This record gives sequence, structure tokens and C-alpha cells, in this order.
Amino acid sequence: MKKNKHYERMKRLKGRELHRFVSGFVDGEGSFSVSVARQPYKHLKKGWKWILNPLFQVYQHEDNLWFLEFLRDDVFKTGRIHRKSSPYHVFTYSVENRQILQERIVSFFQKYRLATKDEDFQIFALVIRAISEKEHLEERGFKKIIDLVFSMNKHGKQRKYSKEDIYKELSEQFRN
Amino acid sequence: MKKNKHYERMKRLKGRELHRFVSGFVDGEGSFSVSVARQPYKHLKKGWKWILNPLFQVYQHEDNLWFLEFLRDDVFKTGRIHRKSSPYHVFTYSVENRQILQERIVSFFQKYRLATKDEDFQIFALVIRAISEKEHLEERGFKKIIDLVFSMNKHGKQRKYSKEDIYKELSEQFRN
Repeated sequence: MKKNKHYERMKRLKGRELHRFVSGFVDGEGSFSVSVARQPYKHLKKGWKWILNPLFQVYQHEDNLWFLEFLRDDVFKTGRIHRKSSPYHVFTYSVENRQILQERIVSFFQKYRLATKDEDFQIFALVIRAISEKEHLEERGFKKIIDLVFSMNKHGKQRKYSKEDIYKELSEQFRN
Repeated sequence: MKKNKHYERMKRLKGRELHRFVSGFVDGEGSFSVSVARQPYKHLKKGWKWILNPLFQVYQHEDNLWFLEFLRDDVFKTGRIHRKSSPYHVFTYSVENRQILQERIVSFFQKYRLATKDEDFQIFALVIRAISEKEHLEERGFKKIIDLVFSMNKHGKQRKYSKEDIYKELSEQFRN
């Protein structure tokens, strides 16, 4: 996208003032989530295992795509932008790499604290830390993370799987 | 509402850093609009006249009502909060007094510039200034303001009246 005059103006905002603006913006338009999904895994009898997908996203109408590019190129210096399939006019900026989430996203919002989304963010940060400390590789740690995940985003969309779905047969996944 | 720990934390953020956060938040969750409505006016043959209603609003889920109270009590020190009739779980913080809009809201966002909503805000600011200079009391000025208003918020909800509806019989309103 051709960089517009707003992009150039935002670029002149630096340091703490820029970061507070971004924090306020993300408080409204961003989300921190951890989805739980099933992934093919032939070593288990059932043929799949549960995995955790932490995700940071910011949404914006296509007219404001430049602001997502600004977040990607000038603020966080990481992440991807793609058009949502529905609604079609919305774009999403996203970061899903766990290490980058820890180093760029979690550390940013620990310093420039959110307002209305701080509580969910703090749980998200605990999940990212538990994963970086490899707690999810043992059943007890995985269950602890699942409990954290289910305490987040109470008003978000319905989860595909219930906690019972996940807990059932979970022990097989952690048997050697 | 009982002030929560987030409220207390936000209160510790001061000056430019606080104001940039608020600007970022409003960039996502706020709106600047001018509605055109008909008001009873017995001195005209048709019995009503066109009026302009400038409005600054910030929306939030009832769980985050505290943040709207923070905007009202600690940031802008003006405005009202009310529950929307639909959707029921959303509250609105609003400022509609024209003089207060000029002194507290327009001046704030001229200093702490928005990103994605700056263009609409700048038109809003022109409307507020034109009104404060009483341009709307003459037909030519009123029409100029209507043109500005119709160039705002292209993606917002449909307007009740078209520009043609408003222009029709407008001259009667400005005849002495």
C-alpha cells in the first residue's frame, strides 16, 4: 500500500508517546487468544493430539490497512497481515510465533499496560511463559495451561471444544 | 460503579502518556458524528426546521464501564454515560454540548492526533468551528456545513435524510 500522509505523521510520533498510543489502540481493536486444536499425530492410537495456538491480532477495515502496516513495519517489526474471508472488508495483523510473542508482544504490553484488556492479556502472558518454560510438554502443565486458557475472553466467541473434550484421553498424549 | 484496580492503575498514568493512550483508544472505539434532524418550529409554515447535532461518543461493553467513567471523570471532565437500548450490554460515553465539544474534545484531539479516524475528526472540527462562529445561522453557512457533514463517516450507518431532503425548502428556514 502506498504510504499515506497519516502514515508519515504517525512515524513522527516516537518512544513512549507512540507506544502509549499503540497500547490504547490495541486495547480497543486487538485481541489476545489461545486456541486449542487437534493436530494429526500418528504415534497415538487415536491419530491426533491437542495443541495450543497462542495468537495476537489487531483488526481493521481495509481503508485503514496502512495502520496495520505501520504496526508491522514500524512498531513491532514482525507479524503478518491478511484479509479476513468474512467480513471481507476487514484485515487482520497477526503474530503467532511463540518466541516472538514473548519477546516483542508480551514485553511490549507489560511495559505499556492495557486498560480494558489487561486482565486477559496477563493470562495470555502466563500462558506464553508456561509454554516457553516447556510446561505444556507434561500433562500437569498442559492442564494448568488449559485452565488458564478457559479463564480468558469470556465474551469471545464460543470455543470449538469443551474442557471435558480436551481432558478426555489427554493422558494418552503424555504417555511415553 | 466501584472503582477497580485497573481504574487506580490508569489514574497513575499522567500527561502526554495518558493522553496518547486515550487517543489510541478513541481511534478504535470512538466516533465523531453530526446528525441532521428536524425540530418543531412553529414559525415556519411546515412547522419544523433542520438542526445539526454534533456528537462525540465512545462505546464499551458493560464490563468495561469503569473505563468510560475514567474518561468522564479523569480525562475529559465532562460528558454523560448511558446504556444503549440495543445491544443491551453496551454503554456509551457522550459529549454533545457544542461549546464543550470545542473546548475539551476538539482541542484534545488536535493536540493528540488520531490515526485512522483523523480525517473524519478534522471534518468534525471544521463543523464545530463553523457552528461556534454562527455560520449555521445563514443559509449559505448551513449548506456548507451540510456538505462537510455528508463527507464524513462514509462507512457509518445510513443517514435518515438525504442531502436533497435537507436542501428542499431550506430557504424558508432562513427567510426572516
